[in-house]
Amino acid sequence: MKAHLITIGDEILIGQIINTNASWMADQLTAFGVEVEEIKTVSDTKDQIIKALKLAEGADLVLLTGGLGPTRDDVTKKAIADYFDTTMEFHQESYDRILYYFKKLNIPVTKLHKEQCYLPANCEVLLNKKGTAPGMWFENKGTVIVSMPGVPYEMKYLMEHEVIPKFLEKKSDVFVSTRTVQTIGTGETVLAEALESFELSLPEKLSLAYLPSLGTVRLRLTGKSENQTEINDLLDLKTKEMVQLIPDFFLGYEKDTIGHVIGNLLGEKGWTMGTAESCTGGHIAHIITAVPGSSAYFKGSVVAYSNEIKMNLLHVEEQTLVDHGAVSEQTVAAMVAGALKTLNVDVAIAVSGVAGPGGGSEEKPVGMIWVAVGNKDRIVTHQLQFGKDRDKNIKLTTNYGLNVLRKFLLAG
Amino acid sequence: MKAHLITIGDEILIGQIINTNASWMADQLTAFGVEVEEIKTVSDTKDQIIKALKLAEGADLVLLTGGLGPTRDDVTKKAIADYFDTTMEFHQESYDRILYYFKKLNIPVTKLHKEQCYLPANCEVLLNKKGTAPGMWFENKGTVIVSMPGVPYEMKYLMEHEVIPKFLEKKSDVFVSTRTVQTIGTGETVLAEALESFELSLPEKLSLAYLPSLGTVRLRLTGKSENQTEINDLLDLKTKEMVQLIPDFFLGYEKDTIGHVIGNLLGEKGWTMGTAESCTGGHIAHIITAVPGSSAYFKGSVVAYSNEIKMNLLHVEEQTLVDHGAVSEQTVAAMVAGALKTLNVDVAIAVSGVAGPGGGSEEKPVGMIWVAVGNKDRIVTHQLQFGKDRDKNIKLTTNYGLNVLRKFLLAG
Repeated sequence: MKAHLITIGDEILIGQIINTNASWMADQLTAFGVEVEEIKTVSDTKDQIIKALKLAEGADLVLLTGGLGPTRDDVTKKAIADYFDTTMEFHQESYDRILYYFKKLNIPVTKLHKEQCYLPANCEVLLNKKGTAPGMWFENKGTVIVSMPGVPYEMKYLMEHEVIPKFLEKKSDVFVSTRTVQTIGTGETVLAEALESFELSLPEKLSLAYLPSLGTVRLRLTGKSENQTEINDLLDLKTKEMVQLIPDFFLGYEKDTIGHVIGNLLGEKGWTMGTAESCTGGHIAHIITAVPGSSAYFKGSVVAYSNEIKMNLLHVEEQTLVDHGAVSEQTVAAMVAGALKTLNVDVAIAVSGVAGPGGGSEEKPVGMIWVAVGNKDRIVTHQLQFGKDRDKNIKLTTNYGLNVLRKFLLAG
Repeated sequence: MKAHLITIGDEILIGQIINTNASWMADQLTAFGVEVEEIKTVSDTKDQIIKALKLAEGADLVLLTGGLGPTRDDVTKKAIADYFDTTMEFHQESYDRILYYFKKLNIPVTKLHKEQCYLPANCEVLLNKKGTAPGMWFENKGTVIVSMPGVPYEMKYLMEHEVIPKFLEKKSDVFVSTRTVQTIGTGETVLAEALESFELSLPEKLSLAYLPSLGTVRLRLTGKSENQTEINDLLDLKTKEMVQLIPDFFLGYEKDTIGHVIGNLLGEKGWTMGTAESCTGGHIAHIITAVPGSSAYFKGSVVAYSNEIKMNLLHVEEQTLVDHGAVSEQTVAAMVAGALKTLNVDVAIAVSGVAGPGGGSEEKPVGMIWVAVGNKDRIVTHQLQFGKDRDKNIKLTTNYGLNVLRKFLLAG
C-alpha cells in the first residue's frame, strides 16, 4: 500500500516553519506497513492543490494537511470540492459541536467558525475532538483521500483515532518492515568501511541506509516481502550480525536516544546524576529530563554561566579560574567535583567552552570545549574542538559529553 | 523566478528525520526573492529521482539534496546521469582535494571516497569546502539543476557560497517580499478577529497568513510586484498598521524570538537573570542561552528536580513542600526568592509542574504547572493546565513562562 503526503502551506515554502507534520505522519504510516512514496509541499492555492491531487492519483492513500483553520488563507476544502466537481454544504453536526464546546469554555463563536462547517458535499466527516476543523474522508477510484487540519495535535488525533484505523481495514498483504540501530561516536565513512562486506552480502529483500546527525549515525535496515514472518526473522538476524560488527559505536535500537540509554545504565546501577553546565546552558539537563521517568535518577543541575556561580555553587577556586581560565581541564574537573557535592549525586558531568559565534581568543578559539565526567573515585576529561555555529556547538557538545558519561558508566 | 526543491532520502519518507534542509533552503531562496513553488521528498531510487526531475521541468531552479554521501544508498548522481543520458566521468580535481584534505587530518582515503569523484559528464563542479562530495550544477532548456549533499552544513556552504550567487546572476525582475510579525499569548482565532477588517482591506498585491506554533502565532504579510520599492513601502506601512491592532500580543519582527526579546529588555535595564527549574529541566535556560551574547545578562540556573535540591540550593522550606507540595504556588514563589539569592540575580523565573506522561494525581493532574517570576520587590505567579504530552508541556511552559517574564520586565 502506497501513500502520498501533501502538506499545504506557504509557511513551509518560504522556510518559516519546518515540516514536522510530514515526518510524524510518515513515521506512523511506516509503523503500520504503509509505504510513503512521496512527500510534497505546495502553496495555499486552489490550482496547486488540485494539481497535486491529480499527480497523486494511483496512490492507495493521499493525506493532505493544512489549510482547514479558521483564517482566511485556507483554500484546501474549496480546492477539493473543485477537484471532485462538487459543491460545499453546511454540516450542522460540526457546527453543533463547536457551539457546545465553546459554550462550555465560555468563548464566543465567530462567523469564521461557522464558515469552517461548510464542507465538500461528497465528504465523510471525521470527528476532530481536538479542534474546530473536522477531518474529511473521500474515496475515489480506489484511492482514499483524507484532508486534515495542519495544527499538529489535531492532525495527530485524527490520524490515530480515525484515519489509520479506518484505512487499515483496507490494507493489503504487502509488508514493509524496518530495524534501526543507533550509533554514536563516529561518522558514516568509518561505519561504512566496517560494514562493507556485510552490506554487499545482504539478500535483495533488504537494504541498508546510513543516516548521520550531530555526533550520531542511525543505521536502518529495510525489508520488503509478502511474508511478514519471513521478513521480520531475516531483519532480526541481520540486525544482530550488524551490531556485532560495530561494538565500539553501538548505542541502541529503534528510537533509543543517548538520554534513554544513560537512564537505563543509571537505573541498573542505582546511581543518581547531575550536571554542571557552562556553555551548554542547560541543554544537557534538558536532554536527560526529556525522558519520561528521569526524576528517578536525575536530581538536578547547576547552570553556571558566570564565574561567580562556578565559585559559589560549584566550589571552583578563584585561583583555578585565574590560572587556567573558565575553559580549561582544571575548571571542568573542579566543576564535576563541586557538582557531586552540591547536588549530592553519584555521578556528574561538567562542560565549559566557547559556544560562539563570538568570544574566542587565539589560545581558546570559538568551538573549544572541555568536558569532564566523574564520581567520588575518578574523573575523566576530554577536550573538543568544533566550529563557529553556536547551536551546533551546543548540540554536538551535549551528544559528545553524554557519550563520555555513557562510557564512564559502562566502565565501572 | 520559481524554484522546486527535491530532497532525496528514505529516512525522510519513513519519518525518521525531519526535513530541516528544505526549510533552510526555502528561507534562503525567499530572502533573495526566489519563489519556492514546491518542495518534494522522494525515495533513494533512480526511477523516483528521474520522475521528480521530469515533473520539475519548467521551473527556473531545481535544487536536489541528499544521496551524494560516501555510502551505498546514494544513487542521485547516477539518476541525474541517466536523466541527461550521459556517462559518469572521474573528476581528478575533486579527488586531489580529498587526498590533500585527508592527509592533513591523517585520515585514510577509502575507495568509497574515490567513487564519490565519478560525476555526470555534463556537470559543472561546485567546490564543497566543507566535505568530500562536490556539488553539481547543470543547465538544461532554461532550467538550472543543482545537486548537493544532504549533510546540512555542506549543503548550506554550497548554497551560500556557490549556488545562490551563481543563480542570482540569472535572476529576473519579479520581486517577492515578506514581513513577519511575531505574537505570543493568544491563538489564531482571536488574532483573526482583531485583524478581520484590516485583512479584508488589504490591496490585492498583499496577502496575510497565520502561522501558529506552541503558544505563539506568526503573522506573515507577503507582497508581489515588479516594483521593489513600491512593494517594500507598502509592506512596511501595512505591517505598522497591523501591529497597532494587536498591542497585547505583539512580540517582535522577523526572526525575533522570546529569547531575543527578553535579552533586549534585560539589556535596557542592565539587569541579570537566572532560572530555577523543576519540570522544564533546564529548557528555559537553554532557550535563553541559545541567544549569542546571552552571557551578558544570564548568570545561571538551578535545575531542581529533587526536593532536596529545592531545599539546599533554593532554600525552599521543608514545611512548604510538606504543606503544599512541590507543584504549588508557595513552592514556585519560594524558588524565585531562593534563586534571586543563590544566583545573585536581579530577576528570576521558577517553574514546577507535572510534565507527564505519568506522575499525576487527582488534585494535581499531569499538565498542571506553576510559574513564578520576581525580583526583590515583587513576585507574580500563574497556574497553567496543559495536556499529557511531556515534550509539548515542557515547551509550552517555557514559552508561557518566558512571556510572564517579558510582561514583568515591561511592567517595571
